[in-house]
Amino acid sequence: MKTVWWQDGAVCLIDQTRLPLEECVVTCRSVAEVARAIRAMQVRGAPAIGATAAFGLALAAQGAAGDTSAILATVEESSAMLARTRPTAVNLFWALQRMGKRARALAGASTEDLRAALLAEAQAIAAEDEAACRAMGRFGAELVPPGAGILTHCNAGALACVSYGTALGVVRAAWERDKQVHVFVDETRPFLQGARLTAWELAKESIPMTLITDNMAGHFLHTGKVQCVVVGADRIAANGDVANKIGTYGVAVLARENNVPFYVAAPMSTLDFQIASGDQIPIEERDPAEVTAWRGVQTAPSGVRAAHPAFDVTPSRYVTAIITERGVARAPFAESLRAMAAAQ
Amino acid sequence: MKTVWWQDGAVCLIDQTRLPLEECVVTCRSVAEVARAIRAMQVRGAPAIGATAAFGLALAAQGAAGDTSAILATVEESSAMLARTRPTAVNLFWALQRMGKRARALAGASTEDLRAALLAEAQAIAAEDEAACRAMGRFGAELVPPGAGILTHCNAGALACVSYGTALGVVRAAWERDKQVHVFVDETRPFLQGARLTAWELAKESIPMTLITDNMAGHFLHTGKVQCVVVGADRIAANGDVANKIGTYGVAVLARENNVPFYVAAPMSTLDFQIASGDQIPIEERDPAEVTAWRGVQTAPSGVRAAHPAFDVTPSRYVTAIITERGVARAPFAESLRAMAAAQ
Repeated sequence: MKTVWWQDGAVCLIDQTRLPLEECVVTCRSVAEVARAIRAMQVRGAPAIGATAAFGLALAAQGAAGDTSAILATVEESSAMLARTRPTAVNLFWALQRMGKRARALAGASTEDLRAALLAEAQAIAAEDEAACRAMGRFGAELVPPGAGILTHCNAGALACVSYGTALGVVRAAWERDKQVHVFVDETRPFLQGARLTAWELAKESIPMTLITDNMAGHFLHTGKVQCVVVGADRIAANGDVANKIGTYGVAVLARENNVPFYVAAPMSTLDFQIASGDQIPIEERDPAEVTAWRGVQTAPSGVRAAHPAFDVTPSRYVTAIITERGVARAPFAESLRAMAAAQ
Repeated sequence: MKTVWWQDGAVCLIDQTRLPLEECVVTCRSVAEVARAIRAMQVRGAPAIGATAAFGLALAAQGAAGDTSAILATVEESSAMLARTRPTAVNLFWALQRMGKRARALAGASTEDLRAALLAEAQAIAAEDEAACRAMGRFGAELVPPGAGILTHCNAGALACVSYGTALGVVRAAWERDKQVHVFVDETRPFLQGARLTAWELAKESIPMTLITDNMAGHFLHTGKVQCVVVGADRIAANGDVANKIGTYGVAVLARENNVPFYVAAPMSTLDFQIASGDQIPIEERDPAEVTAWRGVQTAPSGVRAAHPAFDVTPSRYVTAIITERGVARAPFAESLRAMAAAQ
């Protein structure tokens, strides 16, 4: 299963707003359509957004008229448009920068070579993402005790990446190694990525799971049903502070309070060494209507004020380890993450 | 506003399953209808369930045929039926016991006197509940700093009682004393008592509020927006452990982690000295379908397993104070609660 792929000159996505009841593919034939799909969360999850944006720039290059410098200008404009879609996941900016760098290096190339190179770069980003997830799975599975209850929040699965998943990659790898895990899935209000997406992925592979509301996580941690927590990340600061789906901070505090290890699985592209601590990570505020209604069914009185921060920041003191495709980093994270980045 | 009242020989309830979009009254003309209303959560909230059950026994006595001893037998059977509706809130059993004791004391009375006395006892329970809420409001308001952000979970409002509310009684009293509070309302999945009921109550009185998903509570506690937490309780053990709506434990841990006081407001009828600690409180498991769908709109893939513990237990070490109609108890709770119970 792939979440995003290139097909017949278009960017194809599984429409994640329609899951789990419908499995539809969105075909984007312009960069504006790609931007809309990201903003509307038809594709979401930090690594998936990165790969989608990369394919979006390849698409922009394919569709641009004129000579090489005209194409480069279009790619630049398209990059600015895609950068405005969502602010928190750093993989978006990482992918745009990588594509931009590749494009600028081809300023002297033919239009044909430029288009081919940008598509190849996007394909490489997608392929590397999948390889990174499998590597995270291998490293992470070592940390999962046999028979463990594993709690996860949001969807850091195949649907959040190109394939396999970060946190769910760890779950899959543990399951493939016959560790007999059982997954507790936070439903993850308001967008219900857990109930809709993580449950869908696990059900497809018959990995045992129990869906819970977010406010049950503490109860299951406190009553000994959970042996480790594994989540993904949208951005990790240089000191190891983690921005992830709203509610992650609460899970991390509850895990520590109950002596349950809290693991974050994320590719190196999620690390942002430009940012010293989590305080500086921009937190996206989404439409409060996503809180007061569900699929058109109103849950609150009309006119009620609601808040919708889409992410929160978990200080690194609550993080037991960060699992990347290069290994497992532990505190002090400022040192371990920098060493990991320098290693290759 | 009353949540439950006696009218024309029937028990009347605001149908809380229809709020906030419809304001309907359920009229129960038999004890079986009262039991059904409690089980279906048309009426919910520990004190409200207690008052409703008391009215239910008055209703049973009104409708029973035969002599005094036949009526007493009907009341006894009705009490057993009502006791099977919901297991966690102790106020239900407290009210049934109080009514049963009153009934047995009238074994030598006329049928007319017995019926009148049981109705009067139920009316007294309802009136005392309202007075208790106002007293809790007075004591609790003292603990609320001016301008405070107050976080609450579930609905411990007028709708959870006969009127005014326990936790929302504290909020109302602070508001009436011009403390300029702002309430953060956890939506409280899966039944959405916060979004549907607490938001409805606060909106009616124009008390400033922000509705949030349960998993946002940590974020707002961590970012300094909340100066105190006030919740209700379904049962408090002799040592001060508190059973309350699922998710309360998580809020309590997050409050302590962020040095925010965590207050529990509950009438004396919520204290259960028969139970030494929270471990012994029975936790109701409700239908998992309440987790996988919302008003008929499915949120998870078909066939997914879900859990639905309706309550959790907050160990008393996370509780800053327990506010009752007799005052404010603090740790060590085993002593302070017993002294409070002995005081009258």
